[in-house]
Order: sequence, then C-alpha cells, then structure tokens
Amino acid sequence: MASRNSSAADWLECERVLDRVAGAVRGVLGSGRVPDQIPALASADPHVFGLAVATVEGEVHGVGEWRQRFSIQSISKVFTLALAIEKDGEALWTRVGREPSGTSFNSLVQLEQERGIPRNPFINAGALVVTDRLLTLTGDACGAVERFLRTECACPEIASDEAVASSEAEHGDRNAALAHFVASYGNLENPVGRVLDHYVRHCAIAMSCAELALAGGFLARHGVRRDGSRLVSRSDAKRINAVMLTCGTYDAAGEFAYRVGVPAKSGIAGGILAIIPGRCSLCVWSPGLDNKGNSIAGIAALDAFTTLTGWSVF
Amino acid sequence: MASRNSSAADWLECERVLDRVAGAVRGVLGSGRVPDQIPALASADPHVFGLAVATVEGEVHGVGEWRQRFSIQSISKVFTLALAIEKDGEALWTRVGREPSGTSFNSLVQLEQERGIPRNPFINAGALVVTDRLLTLTGDACGAVERFLRTECACPEIASDEAVASSEAEHGDRNAALAHFVASYGNLENPVGRVLDHYVRHCAIAMSCAELALAGGFLARHGVRRDGSRLVSRSDAKRINAVMLTCGTYDAAGEFAYRVGVPAKSGIAGGILAIIPGRCSLCVWSPGLDNKGNSIAGIAALDAFTTLTGWSVF
Amino acid sequence: MASRNSSAADWLECERVLDRVAGAVRGVLGSGRVPDQIPALASADPHVFGLAVATVEGEVHGVGEWRQRFSIQSISKVFTLALAIEKDGEALWTRVGREPSGTSFNSLVQLEQERGIPRNPFINAGALVVTDRLLTLTGDACGAVERFLRTECACPEIASDEAVASSEAEHGDRNAALAHFVASYGNLENPVGRVLDHYVRHCAIAMSCAELALAGGFLARHGVRRDGSRLVSRSDAKRINAVMLTCGTYDAAGEFAYRVGVPAKSGIAGGILAIIPGRCSLCVWSPGLDNKGNSIAGIAALDAFTTLTGWSVF
Amino acid sequence: MASRNSSAADWLECERVLDRVAGAVRGVLGSGRVPDQIPALASADPHVFGLAVATVEGEVHGVGEWRQRFSIQSISKVFTLALAIEKDGEALWTRVGREPSGTSFNSLVQLEQERGIPRNPFINAGALVVTDRLLTLTGDACGAVERFLRTECACPEIASDEAVASSEAEHGDRNAALAHFVASYGNLENPVGRVLDHYVRHCAIAMSCAELALAGGFLARHGVRRDGSRLVSRSDAKRINAVMLTCGTYDAAGEFAYRVGVPAKSGIAGGILAIIPGRCSLCVWSPGLDNKGNSIAGIAALDAFTTLTGWSVF
Repeated sequence: MASRNSSAADWLECERVLDRVAGAVRGVLGSGRVPDQIPALASADPHVFGLAVATVEGEVHGVGEWRQRFSIQSISKVFTLALAIEKDGEALWTRVGREPSGTSFNSLVQLEQERGIPRNPFINAGALVVTDRLLTLTGDACGAVERFLRTECACPEIASDEAVASSEAEHGDRNAALAHFVASYGNLENPVGRVLDHYVRHCAIAMSCAELALAGGFLARHGVRRDGSRLVSRSDAKRINAVMLTCGTYDAAGEFAYRVGVPAKSGIAGGILAIIPGRCSLCVWSPGLDNKGNSIAGIAALDAFTTLTGWSVF
Repeated sequence: MASRNSSAADWLECERVLDRVAGAVRGVLGSGRVPDQIPALASADPHVFGLAVATVEGEVHGVGEWRQRFSIQSISKVFTLALAIEKDGEALWTRVGREPSGTSFNSLVQLEQERGIPRNPFINAGALVVTDRLLTLTGDACGAVERFLRTECACPEIASDEAVASSEAEHGDRNAALAHFVASYGNLENPVGRVLDHYVRHCAIAMSCAELALAGGFLARHGVRRDGSRLVSRSDAKRINAVMLTCGTYDAAGEFAYRVGVPAKSGIAGGILAIIPGRCSLCVWSPGLDNKGNSIAGIAALDAFTTLTGWSVF
Repeated sequence: MASRNSSAADWLECERVLDRVAGAVRGVLGSGRVPDQIPALASADPHVFGLAVATVEGEVHGVGEWRQRFSIQSISKVFTLALAIEKDGEALWTRVGREPSGTSFNSLVQLEQERGIPRNPFINAGALVVTDRLLTLTGDACGAVERFLRTECACPEIASDEAVASSEAEHGDRNAALAHFVASYGNLENPVGRVLDHYVRHCAIAMSCAELALAGGFLARHGVRRDGSRLVSRSDAKRINAVMLTCGTYDAAGEFAYRVGVPAKSGIAGGILAIIPGRCSLCVWSPGLDNKGNSIAGIAALDAFTTLTGWSVF
Repeated sequence: MASRNSSAADWLECERVLDRVAGAVRGVLGSGRVPDQIPALASADPHVFGLAVATVEGEVHGVGEWRQRFSIQSISKVFTLALAIEKDGEALWTRVGREPSGTSFNSLVQLEQERGIPRNPFINAGALVVTDRLLTLTGDACGAVERFLRTECACPEIASDEAVASSEAEHGDRNAALAHFVASYGNLENPVGRVLDHYVRHCAIAMSCAELALAGGFLARHGVRRDGSRLVSRSDAKRINAVMLTCGTYDAAGEFAYRVGVPAKSGIAGGILAIIPGRCSLCVWSPGLDNKGNSIAGIAALDAFTTLTGWSVF
C-alpha cells in the first residue's frame, strides 16, 4: 500500500478504502481461468492482485501489486481510439460503429451482416480499423501510443514487450481472419500484415496499474492531459467514456454497467481501466478471467470500490 | 411554455434553456416516419413537439405540447421493471438478461440462441417476461402500473387507452410470436393471451410529457418516490438507470449514449423519458421516428439539452 | 412378414431383402430418444420397428409392425404440398422457398432474415404456409388430406387422432410462435388459430407403414395416383422429390442424401416415407430418434435397403 | 457443333438435342453479371456459350464454344474432394460436414457457429480444408489435381493459369479470412499461406467444356475412371453425387435440384459440371452469373437438356 503528494487526511481515507477493496476481493483471488491463446501470457498467476487510483489532480494511491507491469492488451484500444479521434475527429465513425456488439468479442457474424463495418472500436475488428487509421495518420501506430503513454506517466521506459507481441502474432489466426475480412470489404487502408503487426505490438505494451491509472486520467479530466494541455474535446472525452461504458467489457458490458456503473475497458491479461468522470481514473489487475474474458477479481474490486465510495455515473 | 413552484431566477433560467432546445429542434420537426404497425397511432402529426423537465424537488417546466397526452408505449417498460424489482428483487434476473441486444428490438434471433431468456427487459420479449412476472406478483400488471403512475403524478385519470390497446392487439402478431416463443422455453408463468393483454394495455397508457417526467422522478432521486417513500433501493435505481443507458433506445443505445450520454427509454409513439441522476427527469415527445424507432426531434432535443446544461453522466 | 398380389419369385426376393433389412437394424432398436414435446406420443416404445414397400404397380410387402398405425406427423407435409401444388401450381412458391434451411427445423432465425418467407415447405413455418394455402383452396385442409389418403389406401377409416391433435395443440407454443411470426409479415391468409388447428390435425393422422407406402406411390409413379389418374405433372412430381431429398429430413438432409441417397420425409413419431422414382415407395417406422429428429432405426433400414438393392438416385 | 466416335444414329440424335438446347438459351445469353472480384476474369464475354456431353462410354459431343478453355474455379472442388476421399476415405468427414450451408458461399457465420468445421466441402471454407488434407496426403495438392485431369482428358497441357491464380491471390482477402478462421480452430494441418496458394492454383486450372465433361465421367460411371480403373468406390461416387446435388450450386442448391434435378457443381467463371449417373457427364459454360453466383445460361441449358431428355435423378 502506498501513495504520494496527498494531504494526510485524504491519504488515510483513500488508503482505508483501498484496503477494504483488497479485503473484499480476497475470496475470489485464484478463481477463473488464465487464457491460453497467447502462450506468453498463459503462465500468469491468478492470485496476483493490484489496484491503483489516480485522482484528477494526478495523485496515485495503490494496493497490492499496483507497481508490477503486465500486458495491457485490449486496454490499449482506449488510447488508439483517443489518438485517432484527436487527429481525425468524427471521420473515424464512418468506418467503425458505436453500438454494443451483443456477441462475443471477436465475432465475425455481425461484421458480415454489417458489410465490414465493425460494431464498435473495442471489439477486435473495430480496434484493427482504428489501428489502421492511426497508422495512416502517424506512420507508426504503436509508436504513437507508446509516446503518449510515456509522456502521460512520465516514464520513458514504457514499451511493447516483443516476446508477448511475437507470441500473439504466432497465435493470431483469429485476428488475421478479422483483418482480412475487414480488408475484403475495403475497410483497411494499409496492408493487412502491417496493421496486424502494429495491433499486436500496442496490445503487448507492458504497464503497471499506477501507470495505466495515470494514462487514463485525461478521460476523468474531460479530455485534458496531465500537463494541462487538451488531448480531445470535452465532448469527445464524454463520448469515449460512453463507448467504454456500453462496449468496454466485451459482451458483458450491460452486466458491468448494471453492477459497477462506470466507463471501463478490460484486457485479456486481467487489467481493467475504469473512469469516474471528474473524480479519478482507476486500474485494477488480476489475471483470472470469467467466461466473458473479464478479470473476476477486477470486477469485484471495482464493484466494491464504487459501492464504498458511492461513485457511479448513475 | 410554463412552469410552477420555482424561484424566479431558476424559472427564468430553465425557461431560457427550454426555449433554446425548442429552437434547436425546429429544423427536424416533421421529418422521420410515423409507424403504421399500430393503426390507432398512425395518424399522429410528426410536427408536434413537447418537452418537460421535472427537478428532483418536484418542480416541472415545459415547452411546446408538454401537457398533451400521447401513448407511452415502451416507456411503460421502465415502470413494469421498477415495480417487478420492487416486489421481487434480484429474482427477476434469472428470467431476463441485462445485455444490449445488438439487433433490432423485436428480434427473435438472440432469443433463440439464448434459449428463451430475453437479452434485456426493454426488448419486447424481455418486457413480456417482466409483465408476466408482475402479473404473477400483483394479479393485475396493467393496474399496478396505472396505480403507480396516478399516485406519482397526482393525476387519478391516467389510464390505458382501450382503442389503442385493441388496435395494438389486433396487429400484434409479432408480439404474439415472441410470447409463444418465450413460453415454448417455459419462461412464462401465465397464459400467453393474458400476458399479451396486460402488455398491450400498459403500453397504451396515455400520459403527457409533464406526467412522464414526474413519474420517472424516482430514478433521478436514487429510488425515492415523490412523497419521500422509497420505491427501490439506491442500488436498484442505479441499476435501472444502467439498463436504460445500455438498452433503452433499441439498437441505437450505443449511439444515444455517445451523443446524449444519459439513461433514457424511448417509445414508438415518439416519447422519450430521460434521467439525469441527482438532478432531474425529462420527457420529450415528437412522433417522427428514425429507422431505429426513436423520435428524431426527441433525440435532438435531449442532445441540445445536455449540451446546453453540460449535464451528462460522463 | 407378409405380401400380396406378387409373383412367387419376386415375393420371395423381396421377402428376403426385407428380412435382411430387419436383421440389419436389430442392433440399433431401442436407441435414441422418444420426443416428449407432444405428451400423447411420449410413451411410444423405441423397440418397435416396421417397414413396408409398395411397388409402382401397387403391391405391398412388409416386415415387423408394418400394419400398426402411428402418428404420421411431418410426413403429412408431403401430402399438403402435393395437394396445394395440384390446385395452385407454381403460385405457391412466391410464399415459400425451396432451399435447405441449414438450421434446425423450427428455427425462427432464417424466417426473420428472409422476411417471413419460410425456406422450404417442410420446415414447420413453411408447412404452416402450405396448410394455410390449402385451407384457402379447399376450405378444409385436414379433410382434403384425409380424403386423399383414404382413397389412395382404399381405407376409409384413416383419420386424424383427436387426442394426439389436442395434446400437440396444448404444447404448441413453438408452432404458434412460428404462425404468428409468419402472419406478422402478411404471409398467412387465414386466422392463425385456424391454420394451427388444421396443421396439428393433419399431423395427427394415424397410418401404418403399409398405408403410407401406398399413399406415397404417386411420387414413385411420376405423379400418377394408384387409380391411374394424374395428381400432379411429371415435372411437379420430380420437383416434390427434389424438395424431399434436399429438405425432407430436417437439417440432416445432406447427411441423409449422402448416406441413403433417395427422396424422403421423416416425422417426429419415428416414421420416414422414402421414394425410389420409377420403382417403389417405402415407409419405415421406429420411434427412437437421433438428435436431428430422425428415426435412428428408420435411417439404418433405408441405408440397408438401398445398399442391398443398389437403388439410389445417384 | 461437333462429335466423335459415335454411331450415326446416336450422333444425329445427340446433335439435335444439343442444337435445341443452344437454341433454348439464346434468349438469356448476355444477361447476368461477370464477377469483378478476380480482375483476370472480369473481362469475360457474357455472350459466350459452350456445352459438351461425355457419355459413360467416353464419347463427347458439343455445341458452341465447347473446346475453348476457361477457368474451372470451384468446379475443381469436385476433383480435390474425390482425390482426398480416394486417399483418405471417411476420415475427411471429421473435418468438414456434408450439409447444405443455407447461407451464401463464403459465409463465416455458420463456420463460427460450428467451431471451425465447415458445413460442406464445396463452400470455400470446406474446400480449403479439403485442399489442406490433399496437400498433406500428396505434398502437392494442385499438382495432384492437374495430373488427374491430364490423364482423364488425355491432354497433358492442362495446367493452372498463373495469371489468374496471382490475380485471385491478390484479391483473396475473403479466402484468407476463411483460412485463418478455420486455422484458429485448429482445423488446418499446413500453413495458411501454403493452403491458400494451392487453393487458388487449382481453382485457376483452365479447361474446356469437353475436357471437364470427360474429367467428371468417373462420377457418371459410379467411380470408375476412363481407363477402367477405379478411383473411388461405388458408394463414394454416389456420395459425391449426393453432396453435389445438395451443396453444389452455392445457396441455390434447392432451387437447382428442384428445377434441374441432377448433381452439379458450378464455378464463378461460369462453368457448371453436371452428372447423370449411369448415362453421361456434361459441362456447360457461359460467364453471365445470377445473384447466387451460378451461370444463368448454364442453368437454363441444363434445364433444357434434362427436360428434352427426360433424364433426372428424380
């Protein structure tokens, strides 16, 4: 347990909440399954748990393994989306929708019914389209994400883990199928192989809960970066939060909104980034997943946190 | 334009906002289509527009045809859901899910894939299950809804319009198909005909924007009714709001959350009930619908209102 | 084992084949499940087996319980289809397709995708449309089928079993859902309740293997009835056989064509009517069903019969 | 118009039938669309028409452009299937089904529902699995097909057209998506790129109607090759014919069976190979396609041919 730069009273209060959250999840630690589709991630320990909270002022508090790095995986989709919107505005939405998918996160069914326009930017097909757009706009999609994260966390060594990226690429037939399928409808601008390469690499970025909470802070600050400059408009920040709430936890988004009630984006390595607009950004991490692909202890922790604080968007 | 019981300054401020909203939607009035599947509703004038706002303290302000009654249709699903939860708590969720449907609002596809468990309580199949449960719990589902609405609006003449209900029943093959299909999986407790009867009758309840805004007030007050008594727990109120945000506007819920960013439930006669937790409940009405079945002017009005006030959950 | 009106040599030959078929299926008798969705049929004995062959000349040979009556169920769809085509010709095909369904036999999915036009006349939705058309054309769809069957078998007591029909109607939510769904697209001419009534009654007609083999003889005789008069054109007889081959055994039609290779129509009470054009019509009956809804011993018997005789359409 | 090696009377008779067929299709020549997904094929002339009939004895008669070569495309799937069955027998059917697909020929929907087991060997996904198996069994799938075709037609220059294969590979995102998707379920034995390479090359084999009719003769001869040796068992020949009838013309197989009533396999360059067991094999070619992807004039020709000859399997 730790903190920095906070007033003594708040420090104690937050510490107490985080301790209670950690206590609340103890019973579910170790449950769930660690996914085996990416061999480099399959050896994760489902008993690990970390949680960090970054206030809108930039303070960070944490509990458990909140400073240990893990693979951010699909949480990276929040950052590619924000960067693509920053550079491209509304144009992106002609190529990807904003509706919940209603089916599992890498489904091809809806993609076919909707002629290659993925339902939203957080299912894999949609994230591939966003990566493709960011690649066109920047020439280096993964590099653009890394640069943003390094600046936001003031941590220049944040980088993609090449071993994880290679492992994912080697076992990436599903993503290759999605990318080729989207390409068959003319909805990719760059060669399939290049898009897949940037995609697996930004998914393989390694960060800690503390770093992810800080990096997500712009969404709690209505679009403003940690240095006070604006990344996206207030309206776009609200919109990204809306997409996170309705689509951020695969096809359990409705359940998550019902139970936790805040915008969030989960990753297959067990991380979840959550936003409480105007208050704070949080990141929780625990590798055991439920059958929808979300961290069991992570959801339990966010549930406990929002219940203890009374912070929900509803 | 009108108001009541408010301080002069607030009155003027609210009046100004409502006037500006009414101005903002003028350009889209008359566009869209008036649905023809229920003959008794097919003659509605798409140029009509009304908007009412009820503060959590119980004041109501309005603009346009805010006191004219219309058929609440699917907005009634919010009240059947709340009343079933009030009486039955979590038990309801074994029979209906909480996930966005991802397909059009009366789709049988997902119902089949999920073995008769509707995706959420706001698609027609799910609302039939909720009506069935409320019928079992109260013996008179439509009557229970009418009683609640009359009390909440202090308006004893609120009632189902029998002509609309009959018209809907006569043209209700789709709903009959859904009800029999759900029944074929053993997910109805009452005879199909009786469930359909109560369903079309509570959908045919006639109310004004002012009355609907007042009736939805308990969701803005975290579960507390207008008289100060509690209808549902704070947690359940939050959950109903979450279901409204993710599922309340058919398969445009993601788009609506993105654009407007508040919990809402639309009806096929052109009404939309929206909730801004802790602040107010609103009802807007205009019969011209977009191709997803939501009021075009209604969405535009809520968009303008949230933009002008800065009130969004995100 | 029995026969009639045959030359001694043929009689002996056919008897030998039928005996060998009966021997071949002995091992699978009693396997499979007896469906429980129609209570009046749920008590059938899965060890029962009967097989009858009617030559194009009108001779009948049989083995096992070939003279015991059972519920013809979906086999009735062959006769409603032939009678509707006799009276209406090609017009029928604007309301029902001729493609295999690719999904289970009472699926609503394809029905929705194809706007209320059932894929083929042998899935339940399609058979309801055919019954509806025959009802319009004759005023008494079930009566028309009964009259045809009585004449063709020279057996005036053939009739619908009212107990089975009632049992099926009481547990017929799935069919009611299908009928209302088709009606919601405007594809029924008669009231839903009346169509369902005639449908369950013609499905509940009780016949023996011998009678069904005789009744299906017109399809082996290229459209000519037992008395030499023509029921349907040679071309239409060929077409009905084609629809049987591609759609007659639910979503196992491809497997059946591959394994047995003759036009056939199965029923949920364990009967299968098969046609070998120019040679004979057969009916086999055994109540134990596989997971696609076809009689296990029935398919095994037809497989053995076609293998022993070398009679296949391919 | 031409023929060879036939008795004078038969020669005249067959010539007369083929002339009448050619006359019957004249009205539809030039209609339909020439597919543009493979640029090298997009310039075909939809007015071209050829038809060849090969008797089981090996005589060939033809009309129109029956000696001009075209790209056999999906017709190659008949030969890969036969060769895989020859070498592997029933084992193949654990990796690919035998049911009609019910949806369009390159659909991913059913593939997903059925966990990577394609519905049948003639949809693209299924053909990729067959090619993969043949590649494992022979080390050179395309070469094995070429060798078989050369021998059967006594025509050593039959070969894949490299320009067509390259063009198809460059525009093959849909097939790449299917192959990666099947691979993601573990249903490919060889690298995706190698399977795709052999697949596009055997599809790009160029043959004339005369050659294809001869090459398909083993299916009319119940499994026996032109030189009298057996390729597949009588039973397997019957089964391949059954799969052709139920699955050979994409999702128009039911319509084709109904209208024409013989096993057939169509290709996107406008060819159709048809089998009349015990009598003859036919190939027709005309590039204008209907919206299901089958040659319009080709189907009309087979319809006329079976009507004139009275040859149908039903």
